[in-house]
Amino acid sequence: MAAALAAARAAAAMGEVPVGAVITDSAGTIIATAHNRTRVDHDPTAHAEILAIRAAAKALGTDRLTGCTLTVTLEPCAMCAGAIAHARLTRLTYAAPDPKGGAIEHGPRIFTQPTVHHRPEIITGVAEAEAAQLLRTFFTERR
Amino acid sequence: MAAALAAARAAAAMGEVPVGAVITDSAGTIIATAHNRTRVDHDPTAHAEILAIRAAAKALGTDRLTGCTLTVTLEPCAMCAGAIAHARLTRLTYAAPDPKGGAIEHGPRIFTQPTVHHRPEIITGVAEAEAAQLLRTFFTERR
Repeated sequence: MAAALAAARAAAAMGEVPVGAVITDSAGTIIATAHNRTRVDHDPTAHAEILAIRAAAKALGTDRLTGCTLTVTLEPCAMCAGAIAHARLTRLTYAAPDPKGGAIEHGPRIFTQPTVHHRPEIITGVAEAEAAQLLRTFFTERR
Repeated sequence: MAAALAAARAAAAMGEVPVGAVITDSAGTIIATAHNRTRVDHDPTAHAEILAIRAAAKALGTDRLTGCTLTVTLEPCAMCAGAIAHARLTRLTYAAPDPKGGAIEHGPRIFTQPTVHHRPEIITGVAEAEAAQLLRTFFTERR
């Protein structure tokens, strides 16, 4: 989670919403790190999770990330939860819950849907206070 | 929808699930066309809709596709529905329903969720038989 938080801080420094994500393989080695880049890339899909999944899949030469863990500083949205299912990620760890945009424990609760084709193990609350504070500071400074 | 169906046929010809998508601006001009490329690109996020949204946003130099229509041959999944909301697409037109993976009229029904931050106008059933036949033929040949 330390690497994901560092990526989130890098996002804030360039004016992007501070969310960072890391993908590790089954040995715990980091294979991809990313942060939000929607503004700078002109890409509405450029959430940290999507960019990390794309980078990890490219690095491994496969469209399945079985055995890998996605660690992200904020509860993923519906788009990212869907991508996690498509990528067959084995584990999802996230820090802060997101009552407005989250889709794991809020909103559509993607992994509780009967039609979802893959459910990762889910671990929540790791470094929650630090990740939430990053987001609060970012939005407070911009209001 | 003719251009989306042509893209879907191109996907099938290269062994990708035959789903095609087109984004048009408010004048009806095509600004992006794409089809599934998950296998060839080693990218689990490379659904037709995601690729079309990314290409259109890049072409327009913005992460918002307000005024644009996404036309796709199959009901979008949760990932793609989320991306449609993030991109602020004004209209979504799709051909065949997808009871297994769809997230518009099936599963999480993303645009009926109270927390969804954008709802496009939705038009369904255009060229439904032709789009569904493409998918049936593709999967029958591979079983």
